[in-house]
Amino acid sequence: MSNLITPRTLSGFRDYLPSVMLAREEVLRRAREVYRSYGFTPIDTPACESLDVLLGKGGDESDKLVYRVLSARGDKAEMGLRFDLTVPFARFSAQYINELGTPFKRYAMGPVWRGERPGQGRYREFWQCDFDTIGTTSNAADIETALVINDLFTAIGFDKFEIRVNNRLLLNGLLELNGLAGKAEPLLRSLDKLPKIGREKVAEEMVKEAEVTALQANAVLDLAETTGANADVLNKAEAFFSASPNEKAAEGIRRLRELLTVAKAAGVPEERIKIDLSIARGLDYYTGTIYETFLTDLPGIGSVCSGGRYDNLASKYTKQVLPGVGASLGVDRLIAAMEELKHPLLTGQTTPAQVLIVNFDAARLGDYQRIARALRAACVNVEVYPDTTKKIGTQFAYAEKRGFKLAVVAGPAEFEQGVWKVKDLAKREETAVPEAELVERIKQQV
Amino acid sequence: MSNLITPRTLSGFRDYLPSVMLAREEVLRRAREVYRSYGFTPIDTPACESLDVLLGKGGDESDKLVYRVLSARGDKAEMGLRFDLTVPFARFSAQYINELGTPFKRYAMGPVWRGERPGQGRYREFWQCDFDTIGTTSNAADIETALVINDLFTAIGFDKFEIRVNNRLLLNGLLELNGLAGKAEPLLRSLDKLPKIGREKVAEEMVKEAEVTALQANAVLDLAETTGANADVLNKAEAFFSASPNEKAAEGIRRLRELLTVAKAAGVPEERIKIDLSIARGLDYYTGTIYETFLTDLPGIGSVCSGGRYDNLASKYTKQVLPGVGASLGVDRLIAAMEELKHPLLTGQTTPAQVLIVNFDAARLGDYQRIARALRAACVNVEVYPDTTKKIGTQFAYAEKRGFKLAVVAGPAEFEQGVWKVKDLAKREETAVPEAELVERIKQQV
Repeated sequence: MSNLITPRTLSGFRDYLPSVMLAREEVLRRAREVYRSYGFTPIDTPACESLDVLLGKGGDESDKLVYRVLSARGDKAEMGLRFDLTVPFARFSAQYINELGTPFKRYAMGPVWRGERPGQGRYREFWQCDFDTIGTTSNAADIETALVINDLFTAIGFDKFEIRVNNRLLLNGLLELNGLAGKAEPLLRSLDKLPKIGREKVAEEMVKEAEVTALQANAVLDLAETTGANADVLNKAEAFFSASPNEKAAEGIRRLRELLTVAKAAGVPEERIKIDLSIARGLDYYTGTIYETFLTDLPGIGSVCSGGRYDNLASKYTKQVLPGVGASLGVDRLIAAMEELKHPLLTGQTTPAQVLIVNFDAARLGDYQRIARALRAACVNVEVYPDTTKKIGTQFAYAEKRGFKLAVVAGPAEFEQGVWKVKDLAKREETAVPEAELVERIKQQV
Repeated sequence: MSNLITPRTLSGFRDYLPSVMLAREEVLRRAREVYRSYGFTPIDTPACESLDVLLGKGGDESDKLVYRVLSARGDKAEMGLRFDLTVPFARFSAQYINELGTPFKRYAMGPVWRGERPGQGRYREFWQCDFDTIGTTSNAADIETALVINDLFTAIGFDKFEIRVNNRLLLNGLLELNGLAGKAEPLLRSLDKLPKIGREKVAEEMVKEAEVTALQANAVLDLAETTGANADVLNKAEAFFSASPNEKAAEGIRRLRELLTVAKAAGVPEERIKIDLSIARGLDYYTGTIYETFLTDLPGIGSVCSGGRYDNLASKYTKQVLPGVGASLGVDRLIAAMEELKHPLLTGQTTPAQVLIVNFDAARLGDYQRIARALRAACVNVEVYPDTTKKIGTQFAYAEKRGFKLAVVAGPAEFEQGVWKVKDLAKREETAVPEAELVERIKQQV
């Protein structure tokens, strides 16, 4: 009998309810402030791009994940939903770089869509939050990327995290020495699995998939598994190449050393940055420094902020060579981690207001809104309970459920005396405050 | 010979370049703060919804505007892009209202998509920024909606704007008296055209489309065209109904009167709210108070924030009756207006940073980043120019083009003396500042 449509989200898509959304807004706000504090400027691009802009040269794995969008009045699929923020940025850069000038530093935040099989923490719509510096090969930009990541997680309220840094030039140098330059891609894909399947299986896979000798596979793994304090790792890497020097590897080592030196001078705690020659980031796209960021208390969730240097951002759209470096904050993965770690930004509150003004007497709405306005002018967020027909007990229960700190009540008796009752909802303490002191007193209490 | 893909946006879609994007972020930030200051809490819903959730009962005009999205690996179109934030909110409310409780006040911000013919200021992707209070019929929520709109435009930096308010109950009362209750929809559609085509043509259209008599059409228009100061308009409306009293009309007048009284008590300047019985908002959806907002210096652009009260938000998805009231800020239209009015938020700056630290000596990058860090800690946004190979003149030109206020320079001579040169780029004045005073001095200058 009922013709109701069941309200639901599609598989792989989700709603943000107030408590998580308040945290997400706060994460994005802090990310925005950190990016801006380094001079990254915001841009935005549409959710939909032309398919020829979006898709690779054919057969790419990521092409299969692209959602096609039909033109509204027809059935032609000429556009698709962006699957990351990098491809739209590449298109954007090719289009405007002459107007914008280089170097160009931008950030972008927004949802991206991938038609993947949904799973634990894997959604078909999720937020990315990228920053990049393009138009320069300077190591200063690579170093700054690490500083930004450090400030970003500090600003979000993390103390225990580690930025793992590597430079592709080391591996590329090794491959060059061994005449294996063309095999970087399959070797990287295997190396990326090191933490999951271990050295032995990676070596086997390299021999099988990249068709290298066991000796060659082991040389790659020896380099990748160099351990020790940062300085030691770089010294060992240098020693590794001492018998047959290679320019690429030397430049990679020089860049990593400079990164450590400048980060220290800039005041980044030493334990925050870890040189890790094993991180590979399976993408062939990166050519220099690469970054991954792990939460010390929840390493299993994977990297929450990753990126790297690339030689040429927009070769698909322009002949202008645009080298750059950047990283992307995985907002949804981070928020999942914050939920698991009971991060203080997830307060359980579902309201952004601190004060509820109880609607005791409908005729006094003007007074309630007048006081609310005075509090708002003092930067206190205030809700006036809308419904005059509800009992005070109901209004208090409403306030407690949502996490308001204070409830303010005034009825005929209070108006006669010129006072307002201020109730601390956690302490269950009530005090009568003269109207002239109300704003000041509430400011102190919230 | 070239295989380059032309970088471009699709027709009706557009990019936000830094100067406009900085303004948009600021508009959204201020809107968010105002909404929060009233206790509206953020939620988010996916861009894609199931088609049965999204589409009307068939044949609706808006259905034709919905972009269908194909499943990633197939060709089935089972989902579509949202065309507003109201339908997803209705679905969301039906799904979670028992968990959330009523009243429930939310805001939501994000892009929506409509397959319309693109035109001057009309895009296929544009941002909405909605706030609603649901689960109450109280006029306190209607009144608050006007207060929020007033604070919103004040916060964005507008002084000259007018919130036009009407209540559908007046027209509904009149129709009820004339036995025309079923004709509200075509009559409203015609009435909505009053500013564009004038009284005579509207009356003609009403006779033709709504099949009412000329006398009936003129009664509707007489009511709609009631003019005068707010109190006069309401008194005249009361007189209009005095011969044959109607409960709906009386309640509409009472609600509008209370809105004026409370808004005045709460400190809203009287000229900001204008009772306008002609505003109709062609949507049959609204049942009570309705709002439109006009910029006094650019009325032709149309309403930049509109909304109203509705009897039942989510009847398509739940039997639970959810009355509510809310409004939507048309972000893109507002920003177009701000560009035309040369609003101070559109500064022409393309960087969010105030200070550029010139990269004079590559070996000093640690010092540059150390000082930058100290400035960032003092809430000054600082960019360290990344490229050490560029001449100082090039770096100054970069700073000027983007709108940095200050450039800070230190080379060997300055490091020896322990000073930094601070250059005011607009005044072209340069001063040498001892390092210990640098942060304080720069804070004063930006």
